[in-house]
Amino acid sequence: MADKFVVTPWEVSGRIDYGKLVKEFGLTPLEGLPKAFTDNLLFRRKKVFAHRDFQKILAAIKERKPFVMMTGLMPTGKFHIGHAVVARQMAFYQSLGAKLYIAVADIEAFHARGQTLEESRRVAMEEYLPSYIALGLKPENCEVYFQSARSADAGRANAYYRLQNMLAKHATFSEFKAVYGEISPGKMVAALLQAADMLHPQLPEFGGPVPVVVPVGTDQDPHLRLARDLAARTKAYRFTTLASTYHVFVPGLGGGKMSSSDERSCIALTDDAKTVKMKVNKYAFSGGKDTVEAHRKHGGDPDVDVAYQYLTFFEEDDKKLKRYYDDYKSGKLLSGELKAILIAKLNAFLAEHQKRREAARKRLHEYLAAPEEFTPKQKH
Amino acid sequence: MADKFVVTPWEVSGRIDYGKLVKEFGLTPLEGLPKAFTDNLLFRRKKVFAHRDFQKILAAIKERKPFVMMTGLMPTGKFHIGHAVVARQMAFYQSLGAKLYIAVADIEAFHARGQTLEESRRVAMEEYLPSYIALGLKPENCEVYFQSARSADAGRANAYYRLQNMLAKHATFSEFKAVYGEISPGKMVAALLQAADMLHPQLPEFGGPVPVVVPVGTDQDPHLRLARDLAARTKAYRFTTLASTYHVFVPGLGGGKMSSSDERSCIALTDDAKTVKMKVNKYAFSGGKDTVEAHRKHGGDPDVDVAYQYLTFFEEDDKKLKRYYDDYKSGKLLSGELKAILIAKLNAFLAEHQKRREAARKRLHEYLAAPEEFTPKQKH
Repeated sequence: MADKFVVTPWEVSGRIDYGKLVKEFGLTPLEGLPKAFTDNLLFRRKKVFAHRDFQKILAAIKERKPFVMMTGLMPTGKFHIGHAVVARQMAFYQSLGAKLYIAVADIEAFHARGQTLEESRRVAMEEYLPSYIALGLKPENCEVYFQSARSADAGRANAYYRLQNMLAKHATFSEFKAVYGEISPGKMVAALLQAADMLHPQLPEFGGPVPVVVPVGTDQDPHLRLARDLAARTKAYRFTTLASTYHVFVPGLGGGKMSSSDERSCIALTDDAKTVKMKVNKYAFSGGKDTVEAHRKHGGDPDVDVAYQYLTFFEEDDKKLKRYYDDYKSGKLLSGELKAILIAKLNAFLAEHQKRREAARKRLHEYLAAPEEFTPKQKH
Repeated sequence: MADKFVVTPWEVSGRIDYGKLVKEFGLTPLEGLPKAFTDNLLFRRKKVFAHRDFQKILAAIKERKPFVMMTGLMPTGKFHIGHAVVARQMAFYQSLGAKLYIAVADIEAFHARGQTLEESRRVAMEEYLPSYIALGLKPENCEVYFQSARSADAGRANAYYRLQNMLAKHATFSEFKAVYGEISPGKMVAALLQAADMLHPQLPEFGGPVPVVVPVGTDQDPHLRLARDLAARTKAYRFTTLASTYHVFVPGLGGGKMSSSDERSCIALTDDAKTVKMKVNKYAFSGGKDTVEAHRKHGGDPDVDVAYQYLTFFEEDDKKLKRYYDDYKSGKLLSGELKAILIAKLNAFLAEHQKRREAARKRLHEYLAAPEEFTPKQKH
């Protein structure tokens, strides 16, 4: 893989040097976290590796004060193991006492992808929400909402869209271009709505100023910066500065960022055991040598091996993981054997997940900020 | 006055040739109206002189089917006799069975004039609404709302702002520039919200497709065209094409368009009798001759005389008005005498109006789509 890499909201490519990104974006490495965090695989293994203003969140947790975790989902394609990284953080922050706001970005999908609101609703309700719930999301202190129908509470609905409209005051066209590459009226309103998504948990109608953390992939940092900048300029609201954390990308089977629209890149949480076996064996980029003899002699490279990378997300046991690493590097463990370990691990996880997912389907309504009757009354 | 004139949303100047405007804008002259209309001074005297697609409205009235009159107000400055032209149409359409939607453009005032939402609310509640009510607006079938807090009904609030967001899809930056001269993100969201103001009465949440008429001054036609164009392109909604009517400008005391920010231009509906007398005598542009002798000999020009123009709005009796016209033209009626007639007429009207206006203050809540508790919870 090349040393050159690109990480922007509209392109992620090359082999990403996260250390370099931290410096370029002016992020702070996540270090010295309390035990509750290091008990979690994602923080312990630096899958979540950097932040902005995260100390506010740590202080709130320590002092048992309210805080919010806000995130959004683009309701397109299949729910894959990359999406699970955010979903696991949802359940984790909830266990620490966070209130959760989860935006289904249907207005953004409409403008950026030309997807109807109805299709966005279907994808969110059939693909995303059941998986979130199966991955541990609880209905208490949690609001899932659609950008196109924020709330069944009129005061809250008005306040959310009012904020979107007010935020436009201090924005410039060139800022939007810097974040989005190209800009149209539709993309601009979607960008403002996304900023409102991140900031509205602090409106008085939603409980007033409060520390909010938005966990994102590094490619999303320009969106965070825009929301932070707009908040700082909007003096009428006294926003606590947004906190954010940055997680690594789960690589696609062939490397790069996992893409839900490419079967050869992603493992969906709905894939069956046979499909997972086929995909891992056929498409997973291997760090092993071309022949068994060469592998035994020189060993493989776990750092580029996609099967090993996936195990770092799914094998909870640090000791086991280290053994896989060492054995693969020494040549003791063959590429096919490593893949077989991953396949077994993934399929055990998916079998359990899919059972939970079916049960979750009946509970979607417990999570929604606005019930069915608030959805659009015509085809969009 | 010069023959050159300009009528755009951001400039109205020169002596306006309404016939030329009708041709240039592609409007249709209002002709052959039924008696209910010609009984009304504004229609009989061609103060409302042209339209687009008004036949839909006439048909609805004839067939006693539902129709809507939608209008907005910019909550700045004082309520003056120019504003009364729209207010009188409100009461008139209500008497014909229309449902009324009246938008207080506080988001637009925020972006275009830098005015806070609180100040907009104050101006609307203290200046505009009491005058509308005093001029005959009934609470039945009437919704006054603020753009920043559309409704106390969550389904309606969500639907209104959803429409604003959806309309952006089919808009281009150059269209906004054509309507607004210059454009910023703030002005753009305000423009989209204005289009939503005109179109949202047709959403299913508000009763579904229905003929809607928007009465405007000719300078506002670009806004109408933008809303019509966006509606036509937004296939998900089946909008009945917007109808509009066009009324003449009430001239300012010195000519031109009446401006509420210029004391020498406007007569406010809160002005006392002494102020009205002073303003008319001092500032009203006269079509009379310089000396009594010259006036008696050559006569005055009622067509440019502002006092006479005002009488065409306030003297209901066609015969009396014709006599003023003829006598002024022949020189029998002097400029000072004509002004005295107007002053008496205006002051009688204002005395009655101001009494009604005070009574109206107690009834504002009967007209509002969202009560006080839905207003913004912080200073904007």
